Amino acid sequence: MSEFFVGIDLGGTKIYTALADKEGEIIEKIKTPTQANKGEDVVLDNIVDSVDRVLKDAGQEPTDVSALGLGSPGPTDTRNGILTEPPNLPFENIPLEEILEERLGIPVILDNDATAAALGEQLFGAGRGVENLIYITVSTGIGGGIVIDGDVYHGFNGGAGEVGHMVVEPKGRVCGCGNRGCLEAMASGTAIGRMGLEALRHGTSPLIEEMSGGDEEKIDALLVAQAARKGDKKAEEIYDTAGFYLGVGLGNLINLLNPQMVLFGGGVSKDFDIFSERMLSVARKNAMSSSFEAVEVKPAALGDEVGLMGAVALAVKSNL
Amino acid sequence: MSEFFVGIDLGGTKIYTALADKEGEIIEKIKTPTQANKGEDVVLDNIVDSVDRVLKDAGQEPTDVSALGLGSPGPTDTRNGILTEPPNLPFENIPLEEILEERLGIPVILDNDATAAALGEQLFGAGRGVENLIYITVSTGIGGGIVIDGDVYHGFNGGAGEVGHMVVEPKGRVCGCGNRGCLEAMASGTAIGRMGLEALRHGTSPLIEEMSGGDEEKIDALLVAQAARKGDKKAEEIYDTAGFYLGVGLGNLINLLNPQMVLFGGGVSKDFDIFSERMLSVARKNAMSSSFEAVEVKPAALGDEVGLMGAVALAVKSNL
Repeated sequence: MSEFFVGIDLGGTKIYTALADKEGEIIEKIKTPTQANKGEDVVLDNIVDSVDRVLKDAGQEPTDVSALGLGSPGPTDTRNGILTEPPNLPFENIPLEEILEERLGIPVILDNDATAAALGEQLFGAGRGVENLIYITVSTGIGGGIVIDGDVYHGFNGGAGEVGHMVVEPKGRVCGCGNRGCLEAMASGTAIGRMGLEALRHGTSPLIEEMSGGDEEKIDALLVAQAARKGDKKAEEIYDTAGFYLGVGLGNLINLLNPQMVLFGGGVSKDFDIFSERMLSVARKNAMSSSFEAVEVKPAALGDEVGLMGAVALAVKSNL
Repeated sequence: MSEFFVGIDLGGTKIYTALADKEGEIIEKIKTPTQANKGEDVVLDNIVDSVDRVLKDAGQEPTDVSALGLGSPGPTDTRNGILTEPPNLPFENIPLEEILEERLGIPVILDNDATAAALGEQLFGAGRGVENLIYITVSTGIGGGIVIDGDVYHGFNGGAGEVGHMVVEPKGRVCGCGNRGCLEAMASGTAIGRMGLEALRHGTSPLIEEMSGGDEEKIDALLVAQAARKGDKKAEEIYDTAGFYLGVGLGNLINLLNPQMVLFGGGVSKDFDIFSERMLSVARKNAMSSSFEAVEVKPAALGDEVGLMGAVALAVKSNL
């Protein structure tokens, strides 16, 4: 008997759904609009429809599916299968596991997307065979997932892995969470873009000015990275700053958790080579040498598919 | 058949050894000098003799003992039962588990003292029945032990739990480890004493001056605490600073690990009430609210016996 698994990467704009086997080989996958603005019922219908469609396309029935994994942004109450307050989604404390199990007749496992990504990398990506790893996504925000002894570590009530809100500069910039100096406020894509914007405003970066044509809207972490690659001193300095704080955060994680591997995913990590040298030199200085020598730090492997593969991994793992 | 366990709290000046039952009830205990200055062989003999003596005093044989736990300061290679570089002890990469098992005929389990303390509190102290807890010792230095799902979490190669070397102020004071702004450099007993010393030298604390009689040698964290209790503004400010950084560290731990309980032990924690308010207010601000609301933060319960009870806990736990 074949064993199939469904993975759903639920986002504010799209639902990305796949049918896969237990090795993570994708059999069918589709993207559909979330239609978050149409409210809870429509989004739920869209999720269910997307599952029906991948099954139909693959010629399979729900009874052929062993489990369904769903990765969602924001806080999740994994113990009770509840999406608490997902940003950009019209849900509030919705028992999504129960609802989907009832409508689809498939066991559902729900988790935060960064946590799912950690598991995805561990099962199907750069962390295969590694039992203790941390996945850090550096994107608009900074998130993380912790795998301990091969399993996702949720903590006492599902809140573990909030890497982005580790304070790395107590008197630093104000974070979206209201606090000061969180890693996310100092080194996320948003923080890098904001430093680029300040460079434009202060006239300290000729290249950022040229590349953006003076249009503030065009400045983001990617543009700053491109400027740095072309040798713009200010842009290099911005990535140096981000790399410094990522290094402080990484060093702290190594000292606290002594992981075997730390993987960097998310949009900003596509420019891993720009910030990694500085980050690693700071982490090397901060961390106990035996722990630093033991850890492998590298870019994640699943790229834009990490959300989907993470969701598949949730399903596969729940069935082991 | 009775089950007995031996615990050894191995320190630079004394060896504290006990025979206990599996509930942690002490049957016999003795303290003997370590005689670290006499070298490896003498210290090993002293350890073995202390075990022989508690057994003799209790009228038991080595064959009545199910396991022996030993807590040691400094880094330990728990996977291979090796003491790597214990401070104040004449050992270097000594396979202590193997040596003691051979000489005593009892299964030996070795661990770092802060890790053992975490387990001691979990089995016999303030953390009974709590499966996810962090023990933080604030003393000369700052150390930590992490219990996850009821078991000590060592990380990939035994380095986890280095709470004291979490960087909480990147441009802060230089730590004994050579790095800047480690929690230990900002908030340990040593750091508090040093701030007290500076207050004396700068003439900013009338009470610290009076209580020490101007003798720099007399100034330590305890004296500063006493001055704070008597209303000395500078001494209060010093504990406020320590509380602030302990709060940053605590908030980071809560965000990363979402523990059910965090226990504060060690000498400075005897003055938990002086720094806890500030610490908790900072941690509350820094941590995700669902994780902060879930965690219980309080003083450890085992006091000066935590090293011994931690060692007993190592033995009992190894036998479960």
